[in-house]
Amino acid sequence: MVLSGISEIRSAIDAELESFTRNRASELREIDTHLNPVAEALSEYVLDGGKRFRPIFAYLGFLGAGAKASPQVLKACSALELVHVCALIHDDVMDGSDSRRNKPSLHRRFEALHIDSKYAGSSERFGLASAILLGDLALAWSDQMISESGITETQVKQAIPIFHEMRAELMAGQYLDVLEGALGKSDLDRARKIARYKSGRYSIERPLRFGAALAGASQSLQQSLTDFGLPLGEAFQLRDDILGVFGESSVTGKPSGDDIREGKRTVLIAMTAERSDSLTQAKIERHLGDPNLDRIQVAEIQRLIEDSGALAECEELIGRLLDQALSALNNPELDGEIAERLKEMALAATKRKS
Amino acid sequence: MVLSGISEIRSAIDAELESFTRNRASELREIDTHLNPVAEALSEYVLDGGKRFRPIFAYLGFLGAGAKASPQVLKACSALELVHVCALIHDDVMDGSDSRRNKPSLHRRFEALHIDSKYAGSSERFGLASAILLGDLALAWSDQMISESGITETQVKQAIPIFHEMRAELMAGQYLDVLEGALGKSDLDRARKIARYKSGRYSIERPLRFGAALAGASQSLQQSLTDFGLPLGEAFQLRDDILGVFGESSVTGKPSGDDIREGKRTVLIAMTAERSDSLTQAKIERHLGDPNLDRIQVAEIQRLIEDSGALAECEELIGRLLDQALSALNNPELDGEIAERLKEMALAATKRKS
Repeated sequence: MVLSGISEIRSAIDAELESFTRNRASELREIDTHLNPVAEALSEYVLDGGKRFRPIFAYLGFLGAGAKASPQVLKACSALELVHVCALIHDDVMDGSDSRRNKPSLHRRFEALHIDSKYAGSSERFGLASAILLGDLALAWSDQMISESGITETQVKQAIPIFHEMRAELMAGQYLDVLEGALGKSDLDRARKIARYKSGRYSIERPLRFGAALAGASQSLQQSLTDFGLPLGEAFQLRDDILGVFGESSVTGKPSGDDIREGKRTVLIAMTAERSDSLTQAKIERHLGDPNLDRIQVAEIQRLIEDSGALAECEELIGRLLDQALSALNNPELDGEIAERLKEMALAATKRKS
Repeated sequence: MVLSGISEIRSAIDAELESFTRNRASELREIDTHLNPVAEALSEYVLDGGKRFRPIFAYLGFLGAGAKASPQVLKACSALELVHVCALIHDDVMDGSDSRRNKPSLHRRFEALHIDSKYAGSSERFGLASAILLGDLALAWSDQMISESGITETQVKQAIPIFHEMRAELMAGQYLDVLEGALGKSDLDRARKIARYKSGRYSIERPLRFGAALAGASQSLQQSLTDFGLPLGEAFQLRDDILGVFGESSVTGKPSGDDIREGKRTVLIAMTAERSDSLTQAKIERHLGDPNLDRIQVAEIQRLIEDSGALAECEELIGRLLDQALSALNNPELDGEIAERLKEMALAATKRKS
């Protein structure tokens, strides 16, 4: 197997996920035909349109350490996507989000199944329960996929602790994120810390380190990947924050301004608070977390954020973090071609529109 | 390490869980002091009053195959409790249960934290999000605990597939259970199938097989453990069904009649439906799933179930399943002393009051 570019790696990851998910789905169907909707929904969710950032970074971390392409490692890296599937499904439940990738979120899908099937009881509760269980299943599958990948015992020993850290940090970061919304006021330092934990480590640095550990990379190379991954991960999250307010729904697959409706206290919002007078701040505070915000109100908030200079400051910070990340790629131990691919991924992660 | 009785095994499991959870809790606290409530709640939940049925059955499965006591295996078996912790936390969210073990359920605990701390936004949503994340964390910890247990690569290869099956079957069984409530009418065959999946396999047979696989047990012994575990598991769930309607809240830690309020279509309810005239059936249907049912109404339903003969039929079925389970212990490959312990556990699982 020779993989020359990101898109080939992505296709190979898709194929691994498809084969693994197909097997799990048919096991579910064998238990009971009533599990068909579970098998179908989870298969579609896993296979439908993910950017596969985490598996790709993991596999690049592996190849970057000079290791030869390995289908076993590719499969183990693909398993990171299943952690992400759990995170997205449960995140939508926690936020009460209606849509994801331009389709109904999973709890809404099962709510609709309940309504269409004229089931008894609360449709909302049925949707909630289904989405919690399907997320749990995806999380359990992530281990299973690594464990069935065929990586060696040495590789397991080197890489699994990072996988466990990654999942614990994800849950911790998510809790801090929910708490930040509940604390009811913006704080730039805390918002940046959450961006680093929730996404910085989980989305980029931990996957890279997981892959590098699978290759038995040197301490020096692992450090370079950390120096690349941490600032890039924060920049990745900052781009997410900007898209959560300014993103076009046709591209992001989420309604425009969703982060405002959900009351997310992101770095962008904290920067705006620092730069605004009390009148503007009060205006933003009034709208933050209002689920019924209309387009015009969203546009007003967008304007306030832009006029405060926070959008430009956030863009500038993304640029600085990106530069910092890229400069960490100058480690001669890092395979030259892979360094190019990592640069390509860094640009994709920070310049994306969705 | 010589462990002679069930209570010694239980204490040793408690010690493993305490040490593992203490380490994870301090890692959480190191990430951010705001994670203190998460660390505290999850530690208390793991350490507080579980019966440890699954780890005990797993470890007895290991010892029963003639293996010598092993602290590594004991730790791996203890990890099954963390799967159960996830299942309980998420189950309470899905059912909207207020209490567990005579304390507030975890989502209610975090709802109260939100109220007491005068946090912004919806307290209910904060409780929900926290409980989802803490359950996810417990599920991720279950893998980590096995992976850190120090069992050999051969043991991992033999036992891990059973662990993965167990978790998938648990989620599948839980979904079928939720669906059964939504289907809106009782069906004895389906109710028994769910009892077998949700609890039969997950609570007893899979743990036993997990432990036996760790000992490299023969096919014949594994089959005997299945023949013991499956009927016993079903009987265990039937006892749960009876306690869910007739249990005393001071002993079960849940309000009396909670299964009726939650609209659970258990085997007991299906048996009652089969034995009742349409008037009685209509009466039960009217109360099933009514969250506001009072004591007098619960007492009325209890009487209807008892008068129909369903309670006696259910007790009789438990007795038959127990006999069937015990007869499977006559395999000469099974260690004699462990067979006695399994018998003791079988009685505890089916005669319990909580």
